[in-house]
Amino acid sequence: MGTIETDEQVRSALIEMELGALHRWGKGDPSGFLEISAPDVVYFDPTLEKRIDNHKELSAHYEAIRGMIAIEKHDLLNPKVQRVGDLAVLTFNYVSYGGNEAGMRWNCTEVYRKDPVGWRIIQTHWSHTKTM
Amino acid sequence: MGTIETDEQVRSALIEMELGALHRWGKGDPSGFLEISAPDVVYFDPTLEKRIDNHKELSAHYEAIRGMIAIEKHDLLNPKVQRVGDLAVLTFNYVSYGGNEAGMRWNCTEVYRKDPVGWRIIQTHWSHTKTM
Repeated sequence: MGTIETDEQVRSALIEMELGALHRWGKGDPSGFLEISAPDVVYFDPTLEKRIDNHKELSAHYEAIRGMIAIEKHDLLNPKVQRVGDLAVLTFNYVSYGGNEAGMRWNCTEVYRKDPVGWRIIQTHWSHTKTM
Repeated sequence: MGTIETDEQVRSALIEMELGALHRWGKGDPSGFLEISAPDVVYFDPTLEKRIDNHKELSAHYEAIRGMIAIEKHDLLNPKVQRVGDLAVLTFNYVSYGGNEAGMRWNCTEVYRKDPVGWRIIQTHWSHTKTM
């Protein structure tokens, strides 16, 4: 815990963490997200039958696609952070270009919690933009 | 604000609020969700090009479909609440039966904040289960 962070400092820190993890993701490396996800993380994406409920399940899900994602360029659009104390909600739209994810558009919600080790993701929700 | 609530009390209260709003939703009435959403609510669903960023935009989005949804029966599956102080994350899978939403399966993330008026939704993310 220690130092007090302003909302603006938290906003910048979380966007930087997310961009770092997305950059590694685009090179086929899911460990960026695994390293900043909490043991009790819950997770939705469009490939799943139901919610994933912890880091162990998420690791298994991600290890199955390690090395398979290739994204040349991406945009994290209009990120917003809603922070109340030790929880903060980061939402954004996302577009990937090139590689094998060309032109894919996503909605994303990440909930970060301030743990003793730093801000960690406790909830991830990825979905496709405008499927209906 | 006022009385201290245990995590279990918060869990029960939020699931009850969500079920109440979903019940009205299934009868074509979006006001249940509008009444428990905060002014600064952000919102994703699969019909949108991008994130909705406040209650006014969400109201316009919902008023356009008032009276058009009819759900006979629904199940809120495996609800989980992760609460830290005055923010709480409710996640669940959802299935609707009958009416014009028969057999639709959803992933849902709701983030509730304890405001002076009570718990209010500050982030909603609805997406279809297993579209890929």
